[in-house]
Amino acid sequence: MRAVDLIARKRDKGKLSTAEIEWLIRAFTHGEIPDYQMAAWAMAVVLQGMDADETADLTLAMARSGAMLDLHDLVPLTGDKHSTGGVGDKTTLVLAPLVAAAGLPMAKMSGRGLGFSGGTIDKLESIPGFQVELAIDAFRRAVYDVGLVLAAQTTDLAPADKRLYALRDVTATVESIPLIAASVMSKKLAAGADCIVLDVKYGSGAFMRQPEQARQLAHMMVAIGQHAGRNVAALLSSMEQPLGNAIGNALEVREAIATLQGHGPPDLVELCLHLGTQLLLLAGLAADEPAAHAVLRQTLESGAAWHKFRQMVANQGGDLTVLDDLQRLPQAPIMLPLRAPHTGYITAIDTQVLGMAVNELGGGRMHKTDTIDPAVGLVLAAHIGDLVEAGAPLLHIHAASYAAAARVAPSLLAAYTIGDTLHIPPPLVLEVIH
Amino acid sequence: MRAVDLIARKRDKGKLSTAEIEWLIRAFTHGEIPDYQMAAWAMAVVLQGMDADETADLTLAMARSGAMLDLHDLVPLTGDKHSTGGVGDKTTLVLAPLVAAAGLPMAKMSGRGLGFSGGTIDKLESIPGFQVELAIDAFRRAVYDVGLVLAAQTTDLAPADKRLYALRDVTATVESIPLIAASVMSKKLAAGADCIVLDVKYGSGAFMRQPEQARQLAHMMVAIGQHAGRNVAALLSSMEQPLGNAIGNALEVREAIATLQGHGPPDLVELCLHLGTQLLLLAGLAADEPAAHAVLRQTLESGAAWHKFRQMVANQGGDLTVLDDLQRLPQAPIMLPLRAPHTGYITAIDTQVLGMAVNELGGGRMHKTDTIDPAVGLVLAAHIGDLVEAGAPLLHIHAASYAAAARVAPSLLAAYTIGDTLHIPPPLVLEVIH
Repeated sequence: MRAVDLIARKRDKGKLSTAEIEWLIRAFTHGEIPDYQMAAWAMAVVLQGMDADETADLTLAMARSGAMLDLHDLVPLTGDKHSTGGVGDKTTLVLAPLVAAAGLPMAKMSGRGLGFSGGTIDKLESIPGFQVELAIDAFRRAVYDVGLVLAAQTTDLAPADKRLYALRDVTATVESIPLIAASVMSKKLAAGADCIVLDVKYGSGAFMRQPEQARQLAHMMVAIGQHAGRNVAALLSSMEQPLGNAIGNALEVREAIATLQGHGPPDLVELCLHLGTQLLLLAGLAADEPAAHAVLRQTLESGAAWHKFRQMVANQGGDLTVLDDLQRLPQAPIMLPLRAPHTGYITAIDTQVLGMAVNELGGGRMHKTDTIDPAVGLVLAAHIGDLVEAGAPLLHIHAASYAAAARVAPSLLAAYTIGDTLHIPPPLVLEVIH
Repeated sequence: MRAVDLIARKRDKGKLSTAEIEWLIRAFTHGEIPDYQMAAWAMAVVLQGMDADETADLTLAMARSGAMLDLHDLVPLTGDKHSTGGVGDKTTLVLAPLVAAAGLPMAKMSGRGLGFSGGTIDKLESIPGFQVELAIDAFRRAVYDVGLVLAAQTTDLAPADKRLYALRDVTATVESIPLIAASVMSKKLAAGADCIVLDVKYGSGAFMRQPEQARQLAHMMVAIGQHAGRNVAALLSSMEQPLGNAIGNALEVREAIATLQGHGPPDLVELCLHLGTQLLLLAGLAADEPAAHAVLRQTLESGAAWHKFRQMVANQGGDLTVLDDLQRLPQAPIMLPLRAPHTGYITAIDTQVLGMAVNELGGGRMHKTDTIDPAVGLVLAAHIGDLVEAGAPLLHIHAASYAAAARVAPSLLAAYTIGDTLHIPPPLVLEVIH
């Protein structure tokens, strides 16, 4: 087999066989196929596509390029969740303890934030002492002891994906639905969960602007997971505006805790109940949607979910006294309101601009090596569909300095469209894909 | 400027500016842009194209990446010729001395054969002693002293093209008309000739199977050359069957010499007169086509072209006594006729198969490092449109052994289509593009 022939076939919109894709990924992982051939192949895939078989083959080849976790000696079933990334998306922090408390152990490896999109691992690190880098043994022990673990991805899972993603990042070959689907699912399959729920986001704060692309990605990922014998479902959810009110690491942890304590923002609660319902159904732990919904609501209201979160924090070395006194979470010295320039209805929010503003405040990273300030961020005071009076706050900027806050204010203001007529926001959950 | 942004623009079918293309090529040549980014860009170009401006910009950037020859201190005008490659194409060996003898100094750097297509440099090397590797000084001196030089391309001309071509070769990104045009023309522009004639071939023995692709390439190359201030014309010529009768290095030299001595095969003579006519017109050395044609025919018939060829051979160290006694050219020990299996008209010849058979006999190379046997090859005894009797020879195989000849015979036989009705071959020259 020669790499150049496989590249040529893909360039000409041909199909690669299972054996060819396995060979390509194995040889690439072992350094036998140089980066320049893989880059040409990736660009051919971006422009000519891959069919469902090829995408499933690529996913499995990447998943099997390193260790494949198996947790069945610890618990009969585990759950996992993936979001395609958004702004103010602290869902995992609520969903994982909620579902774990309802009886499905959650074993999740998460990423760090990059660009406008935050990362669960960064958020958790704003809790003093919390350890996100767990060895496989500690990860497994947490599944057994607590039934809940949120950790950074270990380097020996899906190394081919890691290598290919790094190459795609610098060769403008990220934007391919099959390649994105294979990348996400290779990590999920390697991480070992039986039941996987995918939160595929679309809108001004998502990587996919249009629901159609997001739907395509969701269908592809569900098919890959099912092809690999996992129980998978996906939600198509709106990121036309931030989820909840808080954007920024410690601010989001605070909002997640409030949600676990029973007073979260309604959209965040709704999304967590939706995703949790799918997980319980995939695990066979509820007969139907209303039953699953009732169990989860009960788990939230009884404080069981909040207790599970505390168990996880304790197990991973986090300072529990901070959870009892949230003033001890990192806090920014400056809080500056951004005021509505005129009276009207908020009809649109360019959510990506809000994410980038948090980056500029120091709360995210443009490069993998950037360090972040967990305290800074934004807290929304109004949402799409709200009527705001001139001078009323649209949001509050939490910044390290007045100058930093002032610097992002103009772009934030430009991100809001305020009109004369009421605009009803799109439904939070557009559809469920099985 | 970031390479990844330029790759993304091309991926999305956007246009790069002159400054962007210059930067890309300069940074690539200096090793500042890695091969994997250039490979992704090349695949994006293959699939999304480049417009005329971008192609001209790329050509100039590659031409200027190394030394630019200027021969105007030696002679007022020089000519050059390029063929897109074919089977049995010994045109340069006849055309260059013919035009030089008619008054336009010819300064040409040629390539070696690869795949089914032969190379002028390999053919010349079958003349004992002939030196093809000339330093720039020796190349220039030959232009001044003889008015004719055929040499291998020096490494300091268009190094960006050399580097990019090597990368395209292993990343399945050769097949792009703009990239082929830019590659050819960057070398022609760097080599310094004022008048350039391009022989763009189509058919079963050419890289472009269809005239339409060849026409597109010809138009693009002519436009690039004119944009760079050179006088350029192109012929669209048929490679539906080999040119002349001989295929193989020494066999082709022998046929070229016969042509220069006034008894060449009619198609080869016709093509050389056509190409030479264009060169004389581009150089302003003839008032119109009939006048140019008459001058060239006279140059051939008077022996002046043959004399010029001998001067070149002497100047480049070749053994003139071999030219006087062609039996001393390399000769294969075995000559095996391939006979027509039944009576009929030859309606088609898969010319690429003939080129590959010469390769298999040892007369060409599949890899750049292969050594070649100058003696072996094929000599056609019949052409498209000929009526052949069963058992009459279609061609003769010149081989190093009987076994080698027998090995290629079946594929050669399969390359011929012999039918019941006369098939008139396509015209040798389809059109002239100015």
